[in-house]
Amino acid sequence: MRIGIIGSGNMGRSLGILWAEQGHQIYFGSRTKEKGEAVADLAGNSTQGGTNDEAAAFAEVLLYTIRGVNPEEVISNIEILSGKVLIDCNNFDIPEGFAYPPIEESLAEKLASEVPNVRVVKAFNTMAQEVFELAPTPLKDYNVSCFVAGDNEEARNIVMKIAEDIGFKPVDCGGLRNARLLEGMGNFIRFMIIGQKLGSYATISVNMLPTAQQQRLGGRQS
Amino acid sequence: MRIGIIGSGNMGRSLGILWAEQGHQIYFGSRTKEKGEAVADLAGNSTQGGTNDEAAAFAEVLLYTIRGVNPEEVISNIEILSGKVLIDCNNFDIPEGFAYPPIEESLAEKLASEVPNVRVVKAFNTMAQEVFELAPTPLKDYNVSCFVAGDNEEARNIVMKIAEDIGFKPVDCGGLRNARLLEGMGNFIRFMIIGQKLGSYATISVNMLPTAQQQRLGGRQS
Repeated sequence: MRIGIIGSGNMGRSLGILWAEQGHQIYFGSRTKEKGEAVADLAGNSTQGGTNDEAAAFAEVLLYTIRGVNPEEVISNIEILSGKVLIDCNNFDIPEGFAYPPIEESLAEKLASEVPNVRVVKAFNTMAQEVFELAPTPLKDYNVSCFVAGDNEEARNIVMKIAEDIGFKPVDCGGLRNARLLEGMGNFIRFMIIGQKLGSYATISVNMLPTAQQQRLGGRQS
Repeated sequence: MRIGIIGSGNMGRSLGILWAEQGHQIYFGSRTKEKGEAVADLAGNSTQGGTNDEAAAFAEVLLYTIRGVNPEEVISNIEILSGKVLIDCNNFDIPEGFAYPPIEESLAEKLASEVPNVRVVKAFNTMAQEVFELAPTPLKDYNVSCFVAGDNEEARNIVMKIAEDIGFKPVDCGGLRNARLLEGMGNFIRFMIIGQKLGSYATISVNMLPTAQQQRLGGRQS
């Protein structure tokens, strides 16, 4: 697929590199053309780079890495996003002492309200960026979940597929409102990683235990 | 340890049986003496049963399975709980369409405010009761987490130990305020189990991925 990265920092760069290694066409966007090009030069693998506008025009699927910023501030004409899949991977800022406030509205729902004709999908917000640098082998070995929520089923399926491509176990989490639950999980895992000092390789998995019958038969499923 | 169950329904019965199998002394409490005795008769393993008052008087650690009920309603003199460890394993009721409201205050914090001299610990709220009937083997195999939050470190350690005894991987989640995060995870896993139809054997694990160096050395840690 043609995947564009809006905001090519650590998160966008690491994910873009992984997707490029799996044969996807990647366009790294940034606020300046030079920055986007530099990321593509570093990433190699036939990736391209330039402005956020160019990444948006190029892609069918866009990764939006800029927390809490209205797309109107970084893309000159948001009409270009119409009908596309826009992945929100962001989490709220961590408050003093990890005293997270209640989530009244998710960042993903807010983003969707700012770009009304875009298929916003929440994903990739429950793992540290360092995990992408290890992918895909340990992700598969440890059945690391990528939770995916969005109101459009086709868009969810697209994002689940590109998550699976790089080693994650995609978990269908239904409609975009459930991004509130996923951002709560994002708050939790960052508390584990930073607050409880487990470090960046702490991940979340949803596993299916074998039933008593399956245990007797010696099966293991995940 | 002497463990009392306040409200011996499915959850309390299953956990009590597991703990008894690991050598703990169990007292099943219920609103009537007959009901508590009947659960103990069924459970066997030298367990005892009777009223909630009797369970509370007997135990060092109490499992409180009655969601949102003030202990004053089920224990005649709550002074008897003073200094004891009280485990809150409850989750909020599931709203229509899994449209969970924001968590302003956790059930565990509310419980703690009702019994001020008691060491309240949140735990055992992110798995279905059916999982306890499979324990401890698949819990160990799948590194199933038991998240534990509470303001008293000794009390957290006690609960982590009795979680480990029955096959869970205990995860220290710090102070009781973090019960909000854990109850959010409880909301999430029940959405997975019921809303997304994964069934009762869907569980949550926090796993530590091996670093790139550990991968090269062939190590696996959990």
